[in-house]
Amino acid sequence: MTAEEQLESREAVSLDELETLLRIPSISALPEHREDVHRAAEWVADRLQVAGMEGARVLPTGGHPVVYAEWQHRPERPTVLIYGHVDVQPVDPIDLWDSPPFEPEVRDDRIYARGASDMKGNLLESILAVEALLRTEGSLPVNLKFLIEAQEEIGSPQLPEFVAVNKALLACDLVVSADGGQWSEEQPLLTLGLRGLAGLQIDVYGPASDLHSGIYGGMVANPIHALAHILDSMHDLDGRITVDGFYDDVLPLSDEERAAVAQVPFDAAEYTKSVGVEQLAGEAGYSPLERVWVRPTLEANGIWGGFQGEGSKTVLPSEAHAKITCRLVPDQDPARILEAIAAHVERHTPTGIRAETLPLPGSGTPYVIPHDHWGNRAAAEVLAELYGVQPYLTRSGGTVPVCAIFQSELNAYTVSFGFGLDDEQFHAPNEFLRLRSFRRGQIAWVRLLRRLGQEAVPQ
Amino acid sequence: MTAEEQLESREAVSLDELETLLRIPSISALPEHREDVHRAAEWVADRLQVAGMEGARVLPTGGHPVVYAEWQHRPERPTVLIYGHVDVQPVDPIDLWDSPPFEPEVRDDRIYARGASDMKGNLLESILAVEALLRTEGSLPVNLKFLIEAQEEIGSPQLPEFVAVNKALLACDLVVSADGGQWSEEQPLLTLGLRGLAGLQIDVYGPASDLHSGIYGGMVANPIHALAHILDSMHDLDGRITVDGFYDDVLPLSDEERAAVAQVPFDAAEYTKSVGVEQLAGEAGYSPLERVWVRPTLEANGIWGGFQGEGSKTVLPSEAHAKITCRLVPDQDPARILEAIAAHVERHTPTGIRAETLPLPGSGTPYVIPHDHWGNRAAAEVLAELYGVQPYLTRSGGTVPVCAIFQSELNAYTVSFGFGLDDEQFHAPNEFLRLRSFRRGQIAWVRLLRRLGQEAVPQ
Repeated sequence: MTAEEQLESREAVSLDELETLLRIPSISALPEHREDVHRAAEWVADRLQVAGMEGARVLPTGGHPVVYAEWQHRPERPTVLIYGHVDVQPVDPIDLWDSPPFEPEVRDDRIYARGASDMKGNLLESILAVEALLRTEGSLPVNLKFLIEAQEEIGSPQLPEFVAVNKALLACDLVVSADGGQWSEEQPLLTLGLRGLAGLQIDVYGPASDLHSGIYGGMVANPIHALAHILDSMHDLDGRITVDGFYDDVLPLSDEERAAVAQVPFDAAEYTKSVGVEQLAGEAGYSPLERVWVRPTLEANGIWGGFQGEGSKTVLPSEAHAKITCRLVPDQDPARILEAIAAHVERHTPTGIRAETLPLPGSGTPYVIPHDHWGNRAAAEVLAELYGVQPYLTRSGGTVPVCAIFQSELNAYTVSFGFGLDDEQFHAPNEFLRLRSFRRGQIAWVRLLRRLGQEAVPQ
Repeated sequence: MTAEEQLESREAVSLDELETLLRIPSISALPEHREDVHRAAEWVADRLQVAGMEGARVLPTGGHPVVYAEWQHRPERPTVLIYGHVDVQPVDPIDLWDSPPFEPEVRDDRIYARGASDMKGNLLESILAVEALLRTEGSLPVNLKFLIEAQEEIGSPQLPEFVAVNKALLACDLVVSADGGQWSEEQPLLTLGLRGLAGLQIDVYGPASDLHSGIYGGMVANPIHALAHILDSMHDLDGRITVDGFYDDVLPLSDEERAAVAQVPFDAAEYTKSVGVEQLAGEAGYSPLERVWVRPTLEANGIWGGFQGEGSKTVLPSEAHAKITCRLVPDQDPARILEAIAAHVERHTPTGIRAETLPLPGSGTPYVIPHDHWGNRAAAEVLAELYGVQPYLTRSGGTVPVCAIFQSELNAYTVSFGFGLDDEQFHAPNEFLRLRSFRRGQIAWVRLLRRLGQEAVPQ
């Protein structure tokens, strides 16, 4: 029996296992789910051990734990580290889910649950592939390590230190990240870049307590208007970010890079329809894909202040708050960006108002990998064979902070190799994964590991 | 025994009665308190009957009820209608209260509870005064009616129709509103004007569901930024409202009116300290008191959208919302103002965003009474005698919508006669009433009714 046949034969069991993992509400952002996150990590460690990986264990980080496992019996072959995460996003607004987020439901060959696409499905694909190879061939084509974290959705606050301290344990020639996606069911892609991330909260304070908007309204500054002013001052009418110094370190976009982006087809009409807007928006002078792939953003993720109940309450509120995250591109530095925003907030705080900024956990440095890196060539061949077409060379607007960390700490590039699709509602209600992707991903991993086994240890 | 002695002798009982009334959580804005509002109205009706008023009863309005009672045995004297309300504001943010809002607590000769100052204390003062007169003198100096509503804090949505339909029942020569305050413990005032009120909610919609801010951020418009833009577009940097047509109907301020306002002392340093801000703010070219008394405002009372939890969620939210109320001055019309704002919102809605506006219940027309009206002269004499100084002639930045309604429907001006003070945290956590005001208010009402009994029926 081949590894591929082995995978096909246990399809129903594998789906059961995915459902089991999806039932664990491993929301890393919410303290009340700390135990669930740990439980998910334990589940993955157990599953890796069962798959035939060695020394599978849950390791502490000071925050949410990581899972490590290894198989190192190919001294003449490269060492590959498979990276993924077992934590998931929060689920609110919960009332927009058609089925409960942690009670997986299969409908139309899709499995609906928080974490299905991002990325418990992808994670399990890689483990199942490794198991199938070990069961059918008795060995793996490469030396292999797994590093599965549980804090990616909050920006991996403790992972940089964990990687730095455990350089020897994690030493490898190539990282393959299972946290990624493909272009469509018919079209593969290779992600050459990821945006970075920097977030902060703005806390705006006015009067010491909520005031009557009649008795005081007109002579006491309103924190909501102050916050609106601060937020609105951060973009001009062309969608350009007006924070002083924000673009200082952005590398100019070469004609070649713009041409590569332009080669990737983009159907604005289909896009607006899928997202549910009448028109796309964004920074003037750039195409939609450029806006998401190679241009930085500054985005409010949440805002609140004053009375939010039913009806009317004529209050002049005491405070207002907003959370902001920026997506960054090479060579922007998260810390410098946060400083620039904090200075901007200070400059734009109106009279009678006090504003504070507080960095949010989870910054990430932007990342790029050469398109002709040996890891990328291997992945491209596997994908081309599996899909029948060459992968697009894309970037992602998202952030996987560890790619930059692996590069600086382990001196290893990261190849992105995941099978989610952009319409799968990750970070949103009704997240789902196509089961076809789940099946195809397992085969893809088998082939990628075989193909990487043809490489010599890099010098 | 005089009425004054009678009031003094039952001081402890009267305080008990105030506490009983304050324990009823009659929050008119919250549907879950509908029964409590009704219970408070029943309590007032019973108390009026006990006081010796006749035909005391709770009447339906289609919304929260009103309480009516009468005493009409002075055909040669004016008919005075005492107006008040028994409903209260919501209590959030609840965690800022030092004692539970509906468990009244006396500390340092102050009673702390939601509704203590606005206006259950004031309301009870007038009832106690009437009772004391009837008990000690066997009759009242004027014909008297009570109209106590239970929806003032939501802008009295059903009251205009109730007054219009019950013109005969409510017919009177003068309204005296118990819903008001004094300048300080030493200084009385007469309120000659009240601002009007118009409110609306702005609902801003972007993508059909919350999106990943990395995958979509940059090409899909963000509803929070759109809302910030809309809100920030409503004022210029001088604090002037930039909604087209907003000031069209504002009557110019005469030199005489500005001089009257300027005669009222205003200590900015003390004010900023009491409110807890470093500087006052507001419209350029006007003094702080002018900004609150004779200039209109546009004020956000609440804002919300996206992720408000702990930590970070990198979401591009689907929607964002704000509640706005405007305080209006003569001759602004609430309906026209709401139309102007709705048009402004439409003009300032960014590409890729859909915005809707929804009027909030509770508009009110601005109101002014001549300073030498006979009702004002009577109130001024009583206050001057009681405090030892002439009352300031002021306006209030707040809104009592019924004043304009009584004027148009009953052809009766309203004299403001209440004893709250501006620092008593009404509409805010830790609302309180000075018990000295509670005692003095009872005496004041006795004297006002006596003084009004010296007037002939107006022709």
